[in-house]
Amino acid sequence: MTTPPAIRWDKQNLELELLDQRQLPEAVSYLSITTLEQACDAISSLAVRGAPAIGIAAAYAIIVCARNVEPKRRLDAVETAAQKLKSARPTAVNLAWAVDRLLAVARGNADLGALHEEALAIHAEDRAICQAIGRAGQHLIKDGSRVLTHCNAGALAVSELGTATAPMYLSHRAGVSFKVYADETRPLLQGARLTAWELDQAGIDVTLICDSAAASLMAAGQIDLVLVGTDRVTRNGDVVNKIGTLNLAVLCRYFDVPFFVACPTSTFDPSTATGADVEIEQRPPGEVLNGRAAAVKALNPAFDVTPADLVTGLITDIGLLDYRKDNALGPLLDSR
Amino acid sequence: MTTPPAIRWDKQNLELELLDQRQLPEAVSYLSITTLEQACDAISSLAVRGAPAIGIAAAYAIIVCARNVEPKRRLDAVETAAQKLKSARPTAVNLAWAVDRLLAVARGNADLGALHEEALAIHAEDRAICQAIGRAGQHLIKDGSRVLTHCNAGALAVSELGTATAPMYLSHRAGVSFKVYADETRPLLQGARLTAWELDQAGIDVTLICDSAAASLMAAGQIDLVLVGTDRVTRNGDVVNKIGTLNLAVLCRYFDVPFFVACPTSTFDPSTATGADVEIEQRPPGEVLNGRAAAVKALNPAFDVTPADLVTGLITDIGLLDYRKDNALGPLLDSR
Repeated sequence: MTTPPAIRWDKQNLELELLDQRQLPEAVSYLSITTLEQACDAISSLAVRGAPAIGIAAAYAIIVCARNVEPKRRLDAVETAAQKLKSARPTAVNLAWAVDRLLAVARGNADLGALHEEALAIHAEDRAICQAIGRAGQHLIKDGSRVLTHCNAGALAVSELGTATAPMYLSHRAGVSFKVYADETRPLLQGARLTAWELDQAGIDVTLICDSAAASLMAAGQIDLVLVGTDRVTRNGDVVNKIGTLNLAVLCRYFDVPFFVACPTSTFDPSTATGADVEIEQRPPGEVLNGRAAAVKALNPAFDVTPADLVTGLITDIGLLDYRKDNALGPLLDSR
Repeated sequence: MTTPPAIRWDKQNLELELLDQRQLPEAVSYLSITTLEQACDAISSLAVRGAPAIGIAAAYAIIVCARNVEPKRRLDAVETAAQKLKSARPTAVNLAWAVDRLLAVARGNADLGALHEEALAIHAEDRAICQAIGRAGQHLIKDGSRVLTHCNAGALAVSELGTATAPMYLSHRAGVSFKVYADETRPLLQGARLTAWELDQAGIDVTLICDSAAASLMAAGQIDLVLVGTDRVTRNGDVVNKIGTLNLAVLCRYFDVPFFVACPTSTFDPSTATGADVEIEQRPPGEVLNGRAAAVKALNPAFDVTPADLVTGLITDIGLLDYRKDNALGPLLDSR
């Protein structure tokens, strides 16, 4: 059994369908995206999530918005769509990056075919990038390894292999026998609903834990490696990722466990100096208060910032960048 | 409005009712405990929870089991009840401690009145202990303090003031203006359901967060103090408490935040050398897999062990014991 793709694009009819990940693991259902509002809503409500997948979805959404527009109005339509899409998830740098690529094409040439080529290229590049990330990190997962991951930086978040999961999928295909612990990842349970589900579908040995149980596992010497994704890496190497990532990084420092972050180079944001400069999305308190909580206030930051100092290295499509080495981020800066 | 008591004991008719905390915050309903099986079930299923409350409930449960037994069979009945009650929650040392007190009385004198006196004494002592803990820790909570707590070591877990919450309640009554962040405490959400509810009922400013958000708050300098309860303190000062406590203690070390543990001296277990000697209760995977998780394996340890090295001090009924001082635990050893 294969994990259903997060994004379906009909090249002939320029039609976009997004796997509604809010319904997983109970139901595999696709949303048909025919308007800008539907696309923005799918992104902001997390029907589609994961930095690369959001970028790919937004690129195709621009094609949807431009496909029935007469040529002389097409650039306007793309500009409007680009602006609204970018504001749907302000922290995800891939979203702005993908949208800006289509915007640049549109400004040079508002031809629908050229725009379509660019969107397809973004998608194809993402597949290649996941493969490259997988190859860069595969050696970290050995027979007997016990890997902890947080949130979902998996196939559902991108195309095919995922980012944090790419080394896992390649190692698994190579016959390596290892164990994954998946943090459930409150409040939206992406680990419980998505990561555990997609790894299990692929036949990888996965065990779910509460976010707060990671320390206890590390204290018992049961975690060899933490491997997470990221929504943004700032110029100094700080990592912006799902709330709870900083927590794991601090634990890794204390328990002497390597802490790796997997991401495409498109996640690197050299225009932002440090994590302190990133606006952290505050999501509705209701996500924390759902279920059976008392009727009190709640604080619900979607992301946290892990300082570069706590990161062992980045696993990227241009190779493994070891933070313990001087100028580790030089190749990333050169790539952007 | 006052928080309803966790335990109701009718002195005239020797009847026990336990607040069914599994129903909170939606419903305030009491379980009538008339058999040993009901008492064990209430303890093992967490209808009554919190180390001191479990001890008090077990003491009264023994009276219930002994009340209609003819004198010559009473010691047998108490022995049987004691054994089964102790095995209902193996990690909670107060349970064994309270049960053993009644057992000692029964072995000396199987008179029902003497047993009843002992159970009442355990309850009255607990009220006095909470007051003493509150006084020992009250000075730590100043105007403007931001306190983080985990799980529920509150009035619901004991009698009247709670343990970790006792300094909060006394400071609040004294007019100190401070803020409490409550970890929701997965998987059973004692923080979301119980601590947030009882503090809010008392008019204390409380904000709920996901367990994994604590690091982000500490990184932003928004936590001045972490204050938790404990189920057991071993001879070397290790602290056994709700899963996630070790997590907070490691964060406190990294972010330089004081980490205090409040407990009655009855929680001190000098017969166990270190936390490594404590059997950690593994609870059903279904508690983690509830809600919307994929159908995978789950690991659900109920407790973790915080090494003494990470503890700033214990707030106890015999005063604040500062771990940074030599022989901090001397008074505790002397007290047992």
